[in-house]
Amino acid sequence: MSEKGKTITAAVLVIGDEILSGRTKDRNTGYIAEYLTNIGIELREARVVPDVEEEIVAALNALRDRYTYVFTTGGIGPTHDDITADAVAKAFDVPIDEDPRALKMMMERYLPGDLTAARRRMARIPAGADLIENPISKAPGFRLGNVIVMAGVPNIMQAMFDSAAKGLETGVKIIAETIEAGGIPEGRYGGALGIIAAAHPGVSIGSYPSFLDGRFRNQIVVRGKDAEAIAAARDAIGAMIASLREYDRPL
Amino acid sequence: MSEKGKTITAAVLVIGDEILSGRTKDRNTGYIAEYLTNIGIELREARVVPDVEEEIVAALNALRDRYTYVFTTGGIGPTHDDITADAVAKAFDVPIDEDPRALKMMMERYLPGDLTAARRRMARIPAGADLIENPISKAPGFRLGNVIVMAGVPNIMQAMFDSAAKGLETGVKIIAETIEAGGIPEGRYGGALGIIAAAHPGVSIGSYPSFLDGRFRNQIVVRGKDAEAIAAARDAIGAMIASLREYDRPL
Repeated sequence: MSEKGKTITAAVLVIGDEILSGRTKDRNTGYIAEYLTNIGIELREARVVPDVEEEIVAALNALRDRYTYVFTTGGIGPTHDDITADAVAKAFDVPIDEDPRALKMMMERYLPGDLTAARRRMARIPAGADLIENPISKAPGFRLGNVIVMAGVPNIMQAMFDSAAKGLETGVKIIAETIEAGGIPEGRYGGALGIIAAAHPGVSIGSYPSFLDGRFRNQIVVRGKDAEAIAAARDAIGAMIASLREYDRPL
Repeated sequence: MSEKGKTITAAVLVIGDEILSGRTKDRNTGYIAEYLTNIGIELREARVVPDVEEEIVAALNALRDRYTYVFTTGGIGPTHDDITADAVAKAFDVPIDEDPRALKMMMERYLPGDLTAARRRMARIPAGADLIENPISKAPGFRLGNVIVMAGVPNIMQAMFDSAAKGLETGVKIIAETIEAGGIPEGRYGGALGIIAAAHPGVSIGSYPSFLDGRFRNQIVVRGKDAEAIAAARDAIGAMIASLREYDRPL
């Protein structure tokens, strides 16, 4: 699927009051971010919106116009607060109804007498969508245009993502190289790193501090698509860090 | 600070390529969400944007117009990829320069000879901003208008948040009551829950499945500001779940 030089972009749209209230901590964005990076798709934006139809529709339309793909998580279960499918239909201005293909998938799990009206809600799929298999609890996700709609429960989302990923166009994979700056403070190498960054415009250079047991530990990451350009920047940063180590002292 | 019936809203803006690449998993949004809920501020939206000035400016302007407060995390360190302060100045169309108050705070940590040009970058504060103390590494965050700018490293962000929170206007605290539905599938109670939700328009009702060891475990949450309305909805849901338990069977 990959085509040299092509850039494929994406956004994540997390849907759910429970994330915004802090009750549930979102783990899906981080998972999707890592997955997309590994298959050569660049995640450019993520948003969290509440279970409010107009908010979902507005975010969907803003994101699907702008990025190659939009991945949504949450809001496709059987309860009244699950309104993602209807919001997607509204955003695309297409009808939505019970989909026989979705019902058939669900019949692998439910006896006909167990197909409550609530469960049948999960078979409501916007017209024109392709279904995304759900090997865990059967009720499918779907893809409509460039929007991929998945469950919010992480293991179901991950299984759906595996199915959906097969049909995605991917670009050149971003390569990342990490240079350990250890305990050298960012403020000691920030000036030199800025000069190196300016001299290597073909790569993106980031400095990432973490704070553990009262001390900073810093890593510098070079990212890009051109292995030679990355190696050149990495070597320049490595030499700069090595020279600083000679003067290193605790701060 | 609280005024009866008043609704105070907020958005979170997470700034950083490392979140979108999946390298770093964002923990700040969940922390801020929980904190805001506890002090009576409603988080309505969250976004993650890359270290690109025009993206930060566009998101800041969209969010600060719409919500009472915007909390940003990330991008205020000493390296070239730390561009949040400049982006905030641009969004507000105010000048930005080295702030003597910020430098003074930093001098508590650094000897004059250690104040590298990179570190002095952290003293760049947009005109008109109030500083937010950073008890951990001294370089401050700031508040300009309704935008609160904090570090990305979680423990520093949390310390800044504690300082910033003192100056926030808060509204009526949202009360949440959780009803354990245990192993009763959502599809068994979804219909009844929808009817209860329609009959209790003054509260918001959500159903939250989690999946553990091959089984769903469901919780129903009633949220709102009116204790009586919440109690009424909670009791109706409790009775409904109790009646279903009598018929419960594994699925």
